[in-house]
Amino acid sequence: MQEADMASYCRDWHGDVEASAIAVLRPANTEEVAHCVKTCSQLGLSIVPQGGNTGLVLGGIPDAPASQVVLSLERMSRIRHIDAEDFSAVVDAGCILEVLKDAVAEQGLFFPLSLGAQGSCHIGGNVSTNAGGINVLRYGMTRDLVLGLEVVLPDGSVLNLLRTLRKDNRGIDLKQLFIGAEGTLGIVTAVAIKLFPQPLQVETALLGLHSLDDAIALYRRARYECCDLLSAFEFMPPLAFDLAIEAMPELVMPLEAGAPAYVLMEVSGSGRVDVRALLEGFLEAVMEEGLVIDGTMASTKAQSAQLWSFREGMNEGQAKRGLHLRTDVSVPLSKLAAFVHDTSAALTLALPECESLAYGHVGDGNVHLNVLPPASYGLQERQRVIATGKKIINEWIDRYDGSISAEHGIGRLKLADFEARLPAAQRRVLEGLRQVINPAGLMNPRCILSDASSPESAV
Amino acid sequence: MQEADMASYCRDWHGDVEASAIAVLRPANTEEVAHCVKTCSQLGLSIVPQGGNTGLVLGGIPDAPASQVVLSLERMSRIRHIDAEDFSAVVDAGCILEVLKDAVAEQGLFFPLSLGAQGSCHIGGNVSTNAGGINVLRYGMTRDLVLGLEVVLPDGSVLNLLRTLRKDNRGIDLKQLFIGAEGTLGIVTAVAIKLFPQPLQVETALLGLHSLDDAIALYRRARYECCDLLSAFEFMPPLAFDLAIEAMPELVMPLEAGAPAYVLMEVSGSGRVDVRALLEGFLEAVMEEGLVIDGTMASTKAQSAQLWSFREGMNEGQAKRGLHLRTDVSVPLSKLAAFVHDTSAALTLALPECESLAYGHVGDGNVHLNVLPPASYGLQERQRVIATGKKIINEWIDRYDGSISAEHGIGRLKLADFEARLPAAQRRVLEGLRQVINPAGLMNPRCILSDASSPESAV
Ligand SMILES: Cc1cc2nc3c(=O)[nH]c(=O)nc-3n(C[C@H](O)[C@H](O)[C@H](O)COP(=O)(O)OP(=O)(O)OC[C@H]3O[C@@H](n4cnc5c(N)ncnc54)[C@H](O)[C@@H]3O)c2cc1C
Ligand SMILES: Cc1cc2nc3c(=O)[nH]c(=O)nc-3n(C[C@H](O)[C@H](O)[C@H](O)COP(=O)(O)OP(=O)(O)OC[C@H]3O[C@@H](n4cnc5c(N)ncnc54)[C@H](O)[C@@H]3O)c2cc1C
Repeated sequence: MQEADMASYCRDWHGDVEASAIAVLRPANTEEVAHCVKTCSQLGLSIVPQGGNTGLVLGGIPDAPASQVVLSLERMSRIRHIDAEDFSAVVDAGCILEVLKDAVAEQGLFFPLSLGAQGSCHIGGNVSTNAGGINVLRYGMTRDLVLGLEVVLPDGSVLNLLRTLRKDNRGIDLKQLFIGAEGTLGIVTAVAIKLFPQPLQVETALLGLHSLDDAIALYRRARYECCDLLSAFEFMPPLAFDLAIEAMPELVMPLEAGAPAYVLMEVSGSGRVDVRALLEGFLEAVMEEGLVIDGTMASTKAQSAQLWSFREGMNEGQAKRGLHLRTDVSVPLSKLAAFVHDTSAALTLALPECESLAYGHVGDGNVHLNVLPPASYGLQERQRVIATGKKIINEWIDRYDGSISAEHGIGRLKLADFEARLPAAQRRVLEGLRQVINPAGLMNPRCILSDASSPESAV
Repeated sequence: MQEADMASYCRDWHGDVEASAIAVLRPANTEEVAHCVKTCSQLGLSIVPQGGNTGLVLGGIPDAPASQVVLSLERMSRIRHIDAEDFSAVVDAGCILEVLKDAVAEQGLFFPLSLGAQGSCHIGGNVSTNAGGINVLRYGMTRDLVLGLEVVLPDGSVLNLLRTLRKDNRGIDLKQLFIGAEGTLGIVTAVAIKLFPQPLQVETALLGLHSLDDAIALYRRARYECCDLLSAFEFMPPLAFDLAIEAMPELVMPLEAGAPAYVLMEVSGSGRVDVRALLEGFLEAVMEEGLVIDGTMASTKAQSAQLWSFREGMNEGQAKRGLHLRTDVSVPLSKLAAFVHDTSAALTLALPECESLAYGHVGDGNVHLNVLPPASYGLQERQRVIATGKKIINEWIDRYDGSISAEHGIGRLKLADFEARLPAAQRRVLEGLRQVINPAGLMNPRCILSDASSPESAV
């Protein structure tokens, strides 16, 4: 492969970081992956596994160009087997998420993992980052959707845990180690997944509320009253709509009066429940009580897509505002409102000229708390804002017993912040795992954990 | 503690095995557990952790009386915290499952783990065996219900992973290692769990069908049509009812004509769905089509309990038949009917004088395939039946890519059968894990994995 062809494998999704590598390997099957791993090991080259390269924490691109190869799974994109009778499928790791979702949908089945990157990310990358997305509250993270894995270990041997059994309690469940390991313990080459009945009724509503507190109260009510059929619950502040319209000027605000807070919620089902009547009844009750002050329910698929385009458009709108602070944090649901209030107040105090906003999967206690500098700021001022903002947010996360990475992982980007909070006992176990499975440290070094010899080399 | 007082800690639940130990330690809190572990380590004594001692694979009782202590968690039974707003709770490992379920129910919440042993087993034991039970198809195994763990490692240090976060993607999820580890990697001292809205509508039906194949077809239909609200689906052959009535003569068969196969199914919900109408509509449709030939729906809680007592009574009935072969196996759902047909035929051929039966959580591809010798058989003949039957079942399990332990674990009872099927790569990783976390091998030796030096010492 030419230098120029390699560039896209060495650049992160946002285009913030450009690296290079000795080579990009593109094996076509598990045996070839094993062969690549053995050869790199003999040559003392380290391997950066890569899926769709949509990861947001720099785990899938090189950081040491002179001694690293990228191993891309993109040629391993085959769906090995869909078993509708077993509600399961087995796919190569390089299969694009959307391709997989479409293929099972053709058989009336549903793979619930849904995220903005689904047109590019691979199922192997989803497993390696334990990806979340909008349907987590109903169906769980990727971990909850995995039945089995095939993994090439750093010594080139193949660990075959590729089963579709729903229940298999033969001792320690080794596949769990590789889910969320971000490519540090081996290369996932195939994945067995759980499938669900395709929901044929999907109802979407956009609701205006008084506050985040009320949105969380609404979520709790919805859990009880919507009978586990709630499938998405996204919180958005008013600024989210401005941002969406900045990016997509054709969008028309679907609710009349401005509310201080909004929720985009979805209820869905496959069968004999009248999901529309369910959601209508629920909304009537919460509006009568004043918990929801305004709302609209989509009555066609197009209207529902329109409502969701605000949620997607707001990301584009943020990107248009230039370099800014993006976070992906979680706290217990019962503390979420207080956490957002306290942290937002601290951000306003420290960075009065910036706008901050919190939005996202609030039902999971997970928000993106982002800080947007004013348009006039140059690169250096923006970097200062990012550093200051991150420090404040991390401090409040610690006070609220939260996580600095709810969904996106640690990679290389969050390594220093992660290690600064890593208790000694946990570090010892993590290092022990690396020692056992990746003893030469050639599998994705300095991702998740710094080198044994030089913890201070962490970025 | 006197010898006599120790006996119950050294005897398995069925009373098949009686052992002894140097001592039974009953620490009252995490610090005392850590202290016990350090002291045993200094003395070179190995530790067998024990919860409610309801485990079915001899993982919680000693096998080397001269060098082992039992460490019982029974004094650590406190519910630390129920957070209804967060749908979570934090409890000491020794809390009895039923106590926990009742405590959260008082707050309108639901902890879905449901199994016959719930009046005695501990949440720490459930975690350590990754217990399943009747609600798995809706809510998952114990693994799916755990948010965090506190573990005392074999070196006496405390690994604090006790969080209630729904989403926390800070790299490798270490708590997964200890779930299903059957006490071999450390002692679970506290557990953070997910809670759900208490289902206020619970509808139960007993249905007669033509065959197991039809029961599986019914399960698939129910998944689509009951909108993810199906919460139990238990298969029972006609013999199950005879056994239940042998144990509980007061039971009256609720369906008139004998059917070749039965399903006990439950649909439940917390809110605005009319669950009874849902189940009624579904049953009407499948009866009209002839998939279900007979059926009754419980109309009171007492009637529902009556239906469930057949499912529970059949276990007692089997016990009354004397020593027999019990298994707990799984295969992919699409192969379950064929597996049961083939294996039952092979059992009848090899053991014509015995009765065999398959029943259980068929929605999970999980059955108990048991063999009952005739009443006249003595101990030796029964042991021969057990050995022959197990060999046949295991062979068919292997042919159908199944698991020899769907729910109960490996412990010491299934160790030889497990290791005989353990691929080399998997064994190396398991041994590596032990080497890293339990290097002296003093934590529950010969459970799940034989001693490094003497694999042939496995029973
Ligand atoms: C627009 C957008 C929206 C997103 N939305 C969400 C969201 O809602 N929720 C969420 O959780 N995440 C989200 N993400 C980030 C998410 O992590 C990724 O989209 C996805 O899971 C990564 O898959 P990938 O195939 O692109 O992996 P990559 O980016 O290629 O790699 C990610 C990590 O996994 C490793 N890896 C990849 N494949 C393998 C393999 N086969 N074996 C071993 N290691 C491997 C890499 O080394 C790297 O460390 C989003 C990203 C984008 C760009
Ligand atoms: C009547 C009956 C019905 C059952 N039904 C089911 C069922 O439907 N589904 C199912 O999956 N199982 C079932 N079981 C078996 C099941 O494994 C146990 O009931 C339960 O999960 C074990 O909990 P326990 O507290 O009794 O553990 P124990 O029996 O005390 O121990 C089990 C294992 O876990 C270890 N252990 C226990 N506590 C800890 C701890 N705190 N830290 C570390 N290790 C620990 C022990 O060393 C042992 O290896 C049933 C058992 C009975 C008797």
